[in-house]
Amino acid sequence: MPGPIQSLERAAAILRLLAGGERRLGLSDVAASLGLAKATAHGILRTLQQEGFVEQDPDSGKYQLGAELLRLGQSYLDVHELRARALIWADDLARATGESVYLGVLHQRGVLIVHHVFRPDDARQVLDVGGMQPLHSTALGKVLVAHDPVARAELQASEREAFTPRTLTDLDAIDAESALTRERGWGAAVEETWTGLASVAALIQDRRQNPVGAVAVHGPVERICEAGAIRPELAIAVRQAARSISRDLGAPRF
Amino acid sequence: MPGPIQSLERAAAILRLLAGGERRLGLSDVAASLGLAKATAHGILRTLQQEGFVEQDPDSGKYQLGAELLRLGQSYLDVHELRARALIWADDLARATGESVYLGVLHQRGVLIVHHVFRPDDARQVLDVGGMQPLHSTALGKVLVAHDPVARAELQASEREAFTPRTLTDLDAIDAESALTRERGWGAAVEETWTGLASVAALIQDRRQNPVGAVAVHGPVERICEAGAIRPELAIAVRQAARSISRDLGAPRF
Repeated sequence: MPGPIQSLERAAAILRLLAGGERRLGLSDVAASLGLAKATAHGILRTLQQEGFVEQDPDSGKYQLGAELLRLGQSYLDVHELRARALIWADDLARATGESVYLGVLHQRGVLIVHHVFRPDDARQVLDVGGMQPLHSTALGKVLVAHDPVARAELQASEREAFTPRTLTDLDAIDAESALTRERGWGAAVEETWTGLASVAALIQDRRQNPVGAVAVHGPVERICEAGAIRPELAIAVRQAARSISRDLGAPRF
Repeated sequence: MPGPIQSLERAAAILRLLAGGERRLGLSDVAASLGLAKATAHGILRTLQQEGFVEQDPDSGKYQLGAELLRLGQSYLDVHELRARALIWADDLARATGESVYLGVLHQRGVLIVHHVFRPDDARQVLDVGGMQPLHSTALGKVLVAHDPVARAELQASEREAFTPRTLTDLDAIDAESALTRERGWGAAVEETWTGLASVAALIQDRRQNPVGAVAVHGPVERICEAGAIRPELAIAVRQAARSISRDLGAPRF
């Protein structure tokens, strides 16, 4: 079987580079960051530009990500079965709890948000679809790590940043909490990524009972918790939503 | 100067193929659709899969777009200067008019929606960011065609579908309306793409007065129009928003 295509791997590396850090880079920066000859990087960038994956600022000559990625990302969402099945349940969950709801799937070394229902009030909120959350410090991530061996392996291989004094970074401590997450059927993160915010999540499974994602309720710690613990009614509501979505994906009743 | 890189062009063609039509395709379908040998298509698909741009369904073996595109699409939005500058003005416009607001840029042969503010009521609405609108039958598209020679050229080269009996498809008729759009400073589409819906849009320019996008108010024809014409107060509000965004982009006061 032939190996991967080098020019494609390099193009993907350039896109990842432009998606992180500074996001507007000149040819020399791109070439130097990836250890490519300038002519090589230029050939790839020109083709990426021609295809709409990269845009070049006419003033500075710097490169940035292109509009075609947004169009393709939307097409990815349109065809996402988990997301399609979850839309109504996520809406219901947000309405029932009065908090924002997130749907996430394992992607690379984090949780990719594929759906986000705003908290049902009038406050201005920013849509997080397409954003990434850490595996070790969010409720979505903890649920995936507890149930998906691939997520557990990614967690082990990743740098676990201590975002707050409450973040768990030690693998043994995380594994102990994973056991608890599996046992009680939900995962929680209280001020472990963002001070003042907490979330509770439950696992979504497909018809083969494979872990395919997680759904979470997310909000201010004062509303998500009571006396330092997740409000039981929120954990119940999240589990119920996860069960409903799983059933719509063909999972057996459990 | 070296030509574009063929494997990259083919990879982009595969992604475009998966973004349209059926969206879940087997290896043979992909190869046949693009006139590639199966081994060639397979090599590209495997590399795309390894990079997260494509996913393969374990049951059917069919390919679909991958999660990395969503992540990169979000990064594109994060770095989008026009969108960043427009956020507050778009919010204000939605609040002032009570209708949904769209921000669009020319992409390929259509308008790519880069921001969408929901109509400020409680009804369930679907976010259209990343979606495409036609150039010839929407207010956003008409404004871009009227002011951007590239958009006009794309319109000429594109198939102009008659979505409703009111859709203009004849190039002369479109050019006549473009002249009107330039003269009065706003473009409109009344039931030309969707029956029952109308929109009014105005041009956004950058500091060199290049056309960089358009902003539109969109809603039921009963609320956008009065006696068959766009409500003047909506046209004024949209123009004012477009001027404010343009000024934030460095355009001279006009």
